[in-house]
Amino acid sequence: MTDIVILGAGNVAKHLVNAFAYAEGLQVVQVYNRSKRGLSAFKENPTTTDIDALAEADLYILAVADDAIEVLSESLPLSGRLVVHTSGSVSIDHLSNKNRKGIFYPLQTFSKDKEVSFEGIPICLEAEDSGDLELLENVAEAISKKVYHINSAQRKSLHLAAVFVNNFVNHLYQIGSEICEANEVPFEVLAPLIEETANKVKELPPKKAQTGPAKRQDITTIKKQLDSLADPIHKEIYELLTDSIISTYGRKEL
Amino acid sequence: MTDIVILGAGNVAKHLVNAFAYAEGLQVVQVYNRSKRGLSAFKENPTTTDIDALAEADLYILAVADDAIEVLSESLPLSGRLVVHTSGSVSIDHLSNKNRKGIFYPLQTFSKDKEVSFEGIPICLEAEDSGDLELLENVAEAISKKVYHINSAQRKSLHLAAVFVNNFVNHLYQIGSEICEANEVPFEVLAPLIEETANKVKELPPKKAQTGPAKRQDITTIKKQLDSLADPIHKEIYELLTDSIISTYGRKEL
Repeated sequence: MTDIVILGAGNVAKHLVNAFAYAEGLQVVQVYNRSKRGLSAFKENPTTTDIDALAEADLYILAVADDAIEVLSESLPLSGRLVVHTSGSVSIDHLSNKNRKGIFYPLQTFSKDKEVSFEGIPICLEAEDSGDLELLENVAEAISKKVYHINSAQRKSLHLAAVFVNNFVNHLYQIGSEICEANEVPFEVLAPLIEETANKVKELPPKKAQTGPAKRQDITTIKKQLDSLADPIHKEIYELLTDSIISTYGRKEL
Repeated sequence: MTDIVILGAGNVAKHLVNAFAYAEGLQVVQVYNRSKRGLSAFKENPTTTDIDALAEADLYILAVADDAIEVLSESLPLSGRLVVHTSGSVSIDHLSNKNRKGIFYPLQTFSKDKEVSFEGIPICLEAEDSGDLELLENVAEAISKKVYHINSAQRKSLHLAAVFVNNFVNHLYQIGSEICEANEVPFEVLAPLIEETANKVKELPPKKAQTGPAKRQDITTIKKQLDSLADPIHKEIYELLTDSIISTYGRKEL
């Protein structure tokens, strides 16, 4: 049995505790949080707000905000234990040298209001010691089918790429929904297109899947669409992304 | 039986002819194209390059490039027939008054290299005559479960929204894949995140689903990520979309 202490009570902590509850050979022996607020969600597990009362465990997972990782890691009254964080953008070097270090980064977007099955979520692992990496691998494989060894530099770039394909993409969905709303068209009409666009990249590299007025350098449509955009930021985004697509495929001589 | 002539030999024409082949009560009696090139793909149907040899039909579908619609529609040696186009961005007014007019706009992205099932594709219909609208409805419902009445102004805005949620989104996927490639991380690691981001909007409005450094106004991460972007256009896109997200949710006092 691998005993795990989770530190933090946010979305990632909650989703991990849920996933571990259904996994063979893993046991969350404690959830720690600085304040009582948040801990009420962990009814099935022992909880504490006292850092000096941390339980014995094989693995300590810091599932806290990026800027809290370094301070929390320094303040742990532990030494020689395996301590990992779950962040995409914080280097392994930010963990205190008092303990053995590692990363357990589930690459997914976690919302409070939306259930997620861990099985398909890639988990990116890093550790300085090969035994520790093996332990992390066992824990990751108990909840997910997609486990990768990714070093800190690669993880940083993955996190950056994720901002483009998740955060920025969602923002474009939102702009799409605003345009629909302003013209009294149900946004659901676009749902199959959104789904197909996302599914396509599993079979075709995005560079090959590109379509649309910018790809075709259809200047008439581009001008008409720019004119019809009311919001100046939407206009700017339209112009910049159109430009970027055009320069990706090479400007036609006009 | 509804007899249909398809004019055009591109992706939309091909996908429509395929879909109609499996539909009850519809028959593609002819495929017309200006040149022989392209017509070789239509082995199951009579074809012609002679506009004066167009077959008798209940419905003529112009599945051609946006800027070819008006000219082709004017040059048809027909009168009083139902002639529709398949474009998202061209008004019904661009069709010649010689014939009855309508729109049959399948809102999906069609690639040569990727099969598409029509069943889930929204088809947006418009016609000036209620009998024509009924005929179009029957044709659309024979191949799709999602049929909408959408007027020209609404269709224009849908097409614009589609550029954001499909063309621009795919371009962001491509930037993500370039970042991965530059750092030797397999792009497939991001596939579940891309899928989840797309699925999320079916359950949550995109405004509620937003996550990430811009949403949190996490200036430290934003600065670090901007610094790590090598391509100046990627940097500009990162800055503009971050700014747009921040102003959507209201700038925090810093």
